[in-house]
Amino acid sequence: MRTPVIVVNFKGYLEASGEQGLSLAKICEVVAMESSTSIVIAPQMVDLSLMVKTVNIPVFAQHIDDVKAGSCTGHIPPEGVAATGASGTLLNHSEHRLKLADIDVLIHRASALNLETIVCTNNLAVTKACAELGPDYVAIEPPELIGGDISITSADPDIVKNAVKDVKALNPDVGVLCGAGVKTSEDVKMALELGTVGVLLASGVTKAKDPKDALMELASGIN
Amino acid sequence: MRTPVIVVNFKGYLEASGEQGLSLAKICEVVAMESSTSIVIAPQMVDLSLMVKTVNIPVFAQHIDDVKAGSCTGHIPPEGVAATGASGTLLNHSEHRLKLADIDVLIHRASALNLETIVCTNNLAVTKACAELGPDYVAIEPPELIGGDISITSADPDIVKNAVKDVKALNPDVGVLCGAGVKTSEDVKMALELGTVGVLLASGVTKAKDPKDALMELASGIN
Amino acid sequence: MRTPVIVVNFKGYLEASGEQGLSLAKICEVVAMESSTSIVIAPQMVDLSLMVKTVNIPVFAQHIDDVKAGSCTGHIPPEGVAATGASGTLLNHSEHRLKLADIDVLIHRASALNLETIVCTNNLAVTKACAELGPDYVAIEPPELIGGDISITSADPDIVKNAVKDVKALNPDVGVLCGAGVKTSEDVKMALELGTVGVLLASGVTKAKDPKDALMELASGIN
Amino acid sequence: MRTPVIVVNFKGYLEASGEQGLSLAKICEVVAMESSTSIVIAPQMVDLSLMVKTVNIPVFAQHIDDVKAGSCTGHIPPEGVAATGASGTLLNHSEHRLKLADIDVLIHRASALNLETIVCTNNLAVTKACAELGPDYVAIEPPELIGGDISITSADPDIVKNAVKDVKALNPDVGVLCGAGVKTSEDVKMALELGTVGVLLASGVTKAKDPKDALMELASGIN
Repeated sequence: MRTPVIVVNFKGYLEASGEQGLSLAKICEVVAMESSTSIVIAPQMVDLSLMVKTVNIPVFAQHIDDVKAGSCTGHIPPEGVAATGASGTLLNHSEHRLKLADIDVLIHRASALNLETIVCTNNLAVTKACAELGPDYVAIEPPELIGGDISITSADPDIVKNAVKDVKALNPDVGVLCGAGVKTSEDVKMALELGTVGVLLASGVTKAKDPKDALMELASGIN
Repeated sequence: MRTPVIVVNFKGYLEASGEQGLSLAKICEVVAMESSTSIVIAPQMVDLSLMVKTVNIPVFAQHIDDVKAGSCTGHIPPEGVAATGASGTLLNHSEHRLKLADIDVLIHRASALNLETIVCTNNLAVTKACAELGPDYVAIEPPELIGGDISITSADPDIVKNAVKDVKALNPDVGVLCGAGVKTSEDVKMALELGTVGVLLASGVTKAKDPKDALMELASGIN
Repeated sequence: MRTPVIVVNFKGYLEASGEQGLSLAKICEVVAMESSTSIVIAPQMVDLSLMVKTVNIPVFAQHIDDVKAGSCTGHIPPEGVAATGASGTLLNHSEHRLKLADIDVLIHRASALNLETIVCTNNLAVTKACAELGPDYVAIEPPELIGGDISITSADPDIVKNAVKDVKALNPDVGVLCGAGVKTSEDVKMALELGTVGVLLASGVTKAKDPKDALMELASGIN
Repeated sequence: MRTPVIVVNFKGYLEASGEQGLSLAKICEVVAMESSTSIVIAPQMVDLSLMVKTVNIPVFAQHIDDVKAGSCTGHIPPEGVAATGASGTLLNHSEHRLKLADIDVLIHRASALNLETIVCTNNLAVTKACAELGPDYVAIEPPELIGGDISITSADPDIVKNAVKDVKALNPDVGVLCGAGVKTSEDVKMALELGTVGVLLASGVTKAKDPKDALMELASGIN
């Protein structure tokens, strides 16, 4: 994905499912074009193929499982995600924490399939631990701020600044995103000023009264 | 779904992913029409929406999670599956066993969303236990026969006969399917003679040299 | 275990850990003798061996894992529980729900090791499902009543009565216990009148100001 | 625990359960005294309390769960382990891998309870990731060598040397142990020469024909 970036996680929101999900994906595509901003979507798992075929912006999976492609009914093998044409995947989201050993393996399996990885983390120590594993990106999101009204960039700018500094020292190839409570252009602008390559958000767009307006506002923080 | 039925589980097979998965789904649709047979597919989870939009036969999820629609990144809420227009879901496949309490809850959540449920089981006692929970169907598949060369209908006809008899006694609204090693029209025919309303299979079609031929052969066992 | 019975689950309560746990176990033993009542304890997992060596009443594990004895660091193989001299095990407690397939297997593994099984259930359908699997006992405990002030026998006597009736019809070898909110001799008495062979409880004893008094009171409901 | 150390993991071996487990623990104690070596045991979870009361060497849990002490039937709350008088715990053993977020939390919960932590790891990247989380020790054990006949110190001395070097650079407070295939005094000696503070082993002692001889031999590698 091109950075700086806004990654929109559709989670399992009803407002981001089925036809509404498809509309939201198209809005993301339109805003990406109109604002010349790099926008990436992580739609619901069951919509992944359809989204890749429908929009012309990078589509990420929300999760992959460390299972062998084949006899893995109901699981999400990385190869199945790659076969959709998706560009990458979130890993270890706070709503789907993974075993450490699996994060390590999945980063490598994804990489071998040309899937970019964004590993979600909850604090500074875990962020550094993940950076040691060599993903493309880490996204620091203190769980207590997720879905809230105060952006991580205001609530705890130091955690973001330190994550950027420490990850750079450990592994300069790993980009840092931040998330939790990100809603305004100011939040996005500050995230970049703190050294991140972008933001990861969900409700700020998916639950907005007017998702297009909300996303245009956010995108204006990047440019 | 209309019975008698052939349910084709795509599992996570590479041969049933991406474009190949889409071709396979279309073959299933063609055979359903040409042979006037009820064929249901359970494609890879990430292809669910696309499959529903592409083919005109019932599409089932391979699995749903007992999570609340919303903050459930990377999981599969039943509501998200329903929003795709899917017709139902497998539950408790041998490759994705579920907690008893979750099977109970998911049968009810699916039902409330007009999703039919096929609960997979491994032996007679578990089949009866599942029948007590009131799914639409149970599918008995002894794990040691799955993916093998001998059909359950030959290897263990009694388990199928007893499942049909016992489930009928417990709850006549629950249909019985069987699976494991089902490959020929004779296997399908015998499954129906043993009292089932159809078969659940995977490799017999997805790994066949010519999936259309394989499925036509299977369909001929129904008519 | 001898019925009618009072099964005291120590859970992970601090009041039932370490030396306090040992005192509590001895109180249970004393009350069992003084009141000539069958009392069974399910102490914390890490205290199992010590409890078996210390008290002369049946000791149950709170849980066993479906792992092979051997390379299963950190898990609880049934053989390890049997080797302590424990008399049985709870299975599928609401705080540790199990996969249906594992409940089935564990009932048989426990039985082969002469460990009695009490499978916990949350509603009538799940109770019947468990009875199909042939444990020694099922213990119906509606989760919304656990730890509360109103006994299941007052809050929902019908669920108990129906569980007893339905389980008897399905499998007369399976005894029914009930639990949730059980605190007084009256609750115990009513449980037996409803046809159960005893009660499963935790906080009513472990969190009582005077556990011995509390347990004597409960025991008086049996005799 | 005092280093250099030999940590003996009893796993779930039948040879290390019940009375045999107790004998093995006493052997470990005797060897510790006779050879003036620091030996730590990690007995089966159900034997923890009894072992602490029986032997006069440090006893570790094999695992703890990130559950709140209280309503956690069948789980292993850290507080319950601390209440036994145990000295520490293994975490993330290859047979019981943990979520990254849980390893982070459990290290802190254990530390607050004065329980030492040994976090098991499988490769260099994961070892460094764990060191970022600040446990007392990491124990590197390539899974493919566990239970085998060739010691990690011969099969892959570089992974041990690099683990020691990298962990020291990241966090000098974290000691490095190594394990897998360790059976002889030479293996132990080499482990120390490579910079570790000890070894973690299981079958080399628990499955030895004469565990005392085996352990004496290992201990001679330390002195």
